[in-house]
Amino acid sequence: MTTPTLSSLTECIAPQLAAVDRLFHGELSGDLACVNTLVKHVSRFRGKMLRPCLVLLSAKAASPEANLSEVHVTLATVVEMVHMATLVHDDVLDDAELRRKGATINHLKGNEAAVLLGDYLISHSYHLCSSLDSQFAARQIARTTNTVCEGELLQIDNRNNIDLDEQTYLQIITRKTASLCATCCLLGAKYAGASDAVASRLELYGLSLGTAFQIQDDILDIVGDADTVGKTLGIDVEKGKMTLPMIHFMRTAPIEHRQLLRSLLLSHDVDKLERIRNLILPSKSIQYARDRARQLVDRARSTLVDLPDSDAKRTLDTMAEFVVSRPM
Amino acid sequence: MTTPTLSSLTECIAPQLAAVDRLFHGELSGDLACVNTLVKHVSRFRGKMLRPCLVLLSAKAASPEANLSEVHVTLATVVEMVHMATLVHDDVLDDAELRRKGATINHLKGNEAAVLLGDYLISHSYHLCSSLDSQFAARQIARTTNTVCEGELLQIDNRNNIDLDEQTYLQIITRKTASLCATCCLLGAKYAGASDAVASRLELYGLSLGTAFQIQDDILDIVGDADTVGKTLGIDVEKGKMTLPMIHFMRTAPIEHRQLLRSLLLSHDVDKLERIRNLILPSKSIQYARDRARQLVDRARSTLVDLPDSDAKRTLDTMAEFVVSRPM
Repeated sequence: MTTPTLSSLTECIAPQLAAVDRLFHGELSGDLACVNTLVKHVSRFRGKMLRPCLVLLSAKAASPEANLSEVHVTLATVVEMVHMATLVHDDVLDDAELRRKGATINHLKGNEAAVLLGDYLISHSYHLCSSLDSQFAARQIARTTNTVCEGELLQIDNRNNIDLDEQTYLQIITRKTASLCATCCLLGAKYAGASDAVASRLELYGLSLGTAFQIQDDILDIVGDADTVGKTLGIDVEKGKMTLPMIHFMRTAPIEHRQLLRSLLLSHDVDKLERIRNLILPSKSIQYARDRARQLVDRARSTLVDLPDSDAKRTLDTMAEFVVSRPM
Repeated sequence: MTTPTLSSLTECIAPQLAAVDRLFHGELSGDLACVNTLVKHVSRFRGKMLRPCLVLLSAKAASPEANLSEVHVTLATVVEMVHMATLVHDDVLDDAELRRKGATINHLKGNEAAVLLGDYLISHSYHLCSSLDSQFAARQIARTTNTVCEGELLQIDNRNNIDLDEQTYLQIITRKTASLCATCCLLGAKYAGASDAVASRLELYGLSLGTAFQIQDDILDIVGDADTVGKTLGIDVEKGKMTLPMIHFMRTAPIEHRQLLRSLLLSHDVDKLERIRNLILPSKSIQYARDRARQLVDRARSTLVDLPDSDAKRTLDTMAEFVVSRPM
């Protein structure tokens, strides 16, 4: 099949996405020129708007007849701000130089500006969220950011742990990535008046999609092409993060191959990444990770089956597929 | 006068401060051992609990007859978490090694853990705040953290700006430090049922006290003794932050002294701090900064005059005095 681009998929929510864009900029601009300059730069990273799409599409999939309200645009903007904050801080943690084909904030302005800009984004996300009448979203968002932080902390606690097991890996990525996607779908559905059952089903969609998305990201970090993917690759290896292909390799490859991977991971060779790639590619470990992502995509799609037919439902279905077929 | 310690001043709110302590730990502990270890370490920095005291004392000063409720304990814990988050991130920005006579998180566990722990603290503060029935506190807290971030961003934008003017300096410290103190007093009073007029007066108390506190901190960074103050000093000079004594010196000292300060600030001499201290101490610039702090303390105390007499009112009055007389 031809891979659709995400923007061609989201025509049915184009006006709301444009409103998210306006609100995002309106909320973040202030009276200080130095702040506005940083915000302008960070806006350039914004590409896919996956999380706002999840909010808006889940709302429409849950209640095809209902019109999306300003509340949904607010929620979609809140989750985009949360996501941008985690990106900016992640780049500090990763010492990354490239993000969405542009220099990262930390590379351009130093780690200090990046730490503060992340703080500024997260603060504004809660501020915007506190403008809603009900506390439900604020509670859910804050619970989710608690979980995201735990995932990140668990991840750095396992840095250079070459014997990381698959279960802990899944715990890390569920908390740091999938939990926010799940919350996007849950909030979108709830604020569209969905029943608890429908909201939970869409929450599971988001959780499965988010987990698959992170596994695919981790595969791309090993086998992807930096120009196509548009961000610095090989970071996981560089920062001692064990991901699913490597975890599988350490569990299943012949003993001498495992020993070689271990010594490569511990080495400071300049061609370390290249050698690891050449070691893992001929094994079954990339395919194993792809299969796991595929299973999760199938689970995501299965949660949609009982929803009434709608453009939004079809789009969520295609988006799940998109996660594992996006360009390498 | 003999300088009282802050804890001897706050006996009238001792049970509530103990409850803040319990809530703080209860909220931050979770199912991950690695997270709990970091939280335990950061708790050691907690000393003065100035901001919880401001919440609780403002409530009692505004309504001496009212009993403090759980809402006040929650609010006091929220502001303590916000404050701890800013401390942890500040130490990353400052590369500080020592905080309240213990190693800083960044020094002990690396900048990455410190960035994430700060994020974890701020996320939990919003989460705890979202447990309140009304959105009023959440809006006010998030608005304040927006302002704190702006102050910090304005500060690093003016790093190494030797010609920083006093007005911009005051804008920086008002936003980064005083705004949270002001919010503590405002929220304490409002949730005790104070009128808008009384709440505004206490907010001004917090703003004035917080500004004086930061000026005194900046004075101590130049003239203080690291053992007594209990944290790394000389950081402002090291990180190119111009503070009030230096700003005054650059405006009023003889031209050759100004040129000397400028060249010292730009130098990488090992005894840079010592030489700057020796240059500024004999001038009138330390006294000028002390006088400014004193004026702000007087303004803080004047806001209390019309409040009904109470232990809490007297304590707020003494606390304002304490800010400019604390140990060097």
